[in-house]
Amino acid sequence: MTTPDKPLAGLRIIEVSSFIASPLAGLTLSQLGADVTRVDPIGGAADVHRWPVTADGESIYWTGLNKGKRSVTADLRSEDGQALVQRLITEPGAGSGILLTNQAGRSWMSHDTLSALRPDVIVCEILGGSDGSPAVDYTVNAGLGFPMITGPLDQGGVTNHVLPAWDVVCGIYAALAISAAVRRREATGAGAHITLPLEDTALSIASTLGYLTEPQINGHGREGTGNNVYGTYGTDFVTSDGGRFMIVALTPRHFRDLVELTGVSDAVDAVEKALGADFTREADRFTHRSVLNALFEPWFARHTSAEVDAALERSSVLSERYRSFDEVVASGRLATNPLFAELVQPRIGTFLAAGLPAAFDGEHYFTGPAPDLGAHTPT
Amino acid sequence: MTTPDKPLAGLRIIEVSSFIASPLAGLTLSQLGADVTRVDPIGGAADVHRWPVTADGESIYWTGLNKGKRSVTADLRSEDGQALVQRLITEPGAGSGILLTNQAGRSWMSHDTLSALRPDVIVCEILGGSDGSPAVDYTVNAGLGFPMITGPLDQGGVTNHVLPAWDVVCGIYAALAISAAVRRREATGAGAHITLPLEDTALSIASTLGYLTEPQINGHGREGTGNNVYGTYGTDFVTSDGGRFMIVALTPRHFRDLVELTGVSDAVDAVEKALGADFTREADRFTHRSVLNALFEPWFARHTSAEVDAALERSSVLSERYRSFDEVVASGRLATNPLFAELVQPRIGTFLAAGLPAAFDGEHYFTGPAPDLGAHTPT
Repeated sequence: MTTPDKPLAGLRIIEVSSFIASPLAGLTLSQLGADVTRVDPIGGAADVHRWPVTADGESIYWTGLNKGKRSVTADLRSEDGQALVQRLITEPGAGSGILLTNQAGRSWMSHDTLSALRPDVIVCEILGGSDGSPAVDYTVNAGLGFPMITGPLDQGGVTNHVLPAWDVVCGIYAALAISAAVRRREATGAGAHITLPLEDTALSIASTLGYLTEPQINGHGREGTGNNVYGTYGTDFVTSDGGRFMIVALTPRHFRDLVELTGVSDAVDAVEKALGADFTREADRFTHRSVLNALFEPWFARHTSAEVDAALERSSVLSERYRSFDEVVASGRLATNPLFAELVQPRIGTFLAAGLPAAFDGEHYFTGPAPDLGAHTPT
Repeated sequence: MTTPDKPLAGLRIIEVSSFIASPLAGLTLSQLGADVTRVDPIGGAADVHRWPVTADGESIYWTGLNKGKRSVTADLRSEDGQALVQRLITEPGAGSGILLTNQAGRSWMSHDTLSALRPDVIVCEILGGSDGSPAVDYTVNAGLGFPMITGPLDQGGVTNHVLPAWDVVCGIYAALAISAAVRRREATGAGAHITLPLEDTALSIASTLGYLTEPQINGHGREGTGNNVYGTYGTDFVTSDGGRFMIVALTPRHFRDLVELTGVSDAVDAVEKALGADFTREADRFTHRSVLNALFEPWFARHTSAEVDAALERSSVLSERYRSFDEVVASGRLATNPLFAELVQPRIGTFLAAGLPAAFDGEHYFTGPAPDLGAHTPT
């Protein structure tokens, strides 16, 4: 065999889980080579029928997040069911003894209980609020500030994100925490009790990116900028046939190219001089974005999307045409991207599904389809 | 010493990097115990002065993403500078030999070149587009579909997200990929060449969450739902004093509590019967969200934010008041959350900064402040 094992080959992970963050963590570990078993109550957890669904009511959501896993169901309120899950988690073997769950607070699968059965157990508990109270992506996000600076400047309200970004980030953090704990256990024999609140995930990123530092240091938080990128030059433009393009000029070269492309060099130079600005500085490009937007807009409004596309293609400017999910699929981009492979998913159909976005030595890691619920329950 | 080492203690990582994804990966590895050195050109990379900045023009952004790292600067266009960086990357030691970069395409620090110097080197390259072309979070997001279903339903345009979600997710994936590759190298001696495009990060998550599966299986992509959560019951309400609350009723119990709280049991029962719906099913709660929103709205409009807060506090309903970043900081939440600790950051000031959101055995991992640019350059 010339291909090395996947990086997390040999690990056996038990996932007692639902919704997004925890199943995504399990899926990611599975893509990296771990053997992951999702445990559900008989009939499935609260997410088993979750939308989106097919015309027949099968959950695209559930199958998407549980690809490549085994599925065990048990009556988790019975002693037998609990003993079964404990046995699965603490079974002997260097790679087993790992629990991933978003259902903390059950004493029969607490770190205390499990570490008494297997001292080197690794338990990763994904929580909601920082204090362990229930919380979901949308409530965490509402309490943190982002919806107040998202969306049109004149709306006077709040705009929720659509991507459950905190769930996704939290899930990948959980996979990372388990991977790092495994590395330490293999070196020292020590287990780990990892706790990871969704709210702390969001607070940590908001802190690292400066959103929570600005009020402390500058006395006020960031304000909304609509579709303009904060701190550099970037915005969206509408073309003569109603297409929309996102444009980002991150470097002086990008900006110079954008100015030339749109044929407004004289006007931009004059404005730069009159305002005492220096457009080689991204701060100045950001500060004067409204003037710049107004200078660039007419060129986009005069040209079709195809013309804009062709001109941008020849320049260094970072740009992308706004596309719908339908257009992404119709474009054929998935078929030509080695990140995608055909997946035959029972109950759902055959379609192109993505593997792990990180390729190892050029290889994209895929898992098989999601299991039938309970398909691997010991008999 | 009773505290076990941090999980990635002993690793030495060289980061040739800028912007968000790659520095965030380095920061995260540093939080987990790795010794991370960021290498920059003399004077700093393109992100060295990036906004947000303090009143004195010091970058809150740069310091936030480079906490706890060493800083080496070198003339990366000179042979001497390149040789220095190669030596740093390939220096002997079980934990060294790891490069994290978003600047692929330089032959002197390619995986080919470095693995000739140290066969077990781990190189993680963060790319932009799937094909390696330049791309940033905002352009990737525009091309993928999310902005078309974000924001008010009547706006007729596109809404960019504010959080650079793909950068963040990509950065945590990169940290995970390196951690997993280290685990494999410690077991087998094999290095790794990891490539991770920002665009593939976004495509993979969009695929896993079903956004790219729906057009393939159901024939059409998801449509916008404004501030309503897709597939279950959740939306925002305005109170009598202009406060806003995000409400999510994920389970039948949450929903029952919301109905009782707002005093519209009779109306909800009548509507349920008349529409042939079953509001114990989240799909039905989602399908009939407009009617439900209209039934609940008056209660919120009649009560102050304090009254709404108190009533929600007593119920199981998942809820959060929308807050600005200023309000988050002013609330005192950071000071009471062990995720935060005071950081004395030269050039910026003293403030509460978050550590790693995952706690190991109850311990939150923090790093020190960001270095002065070039402070650790070998002399």
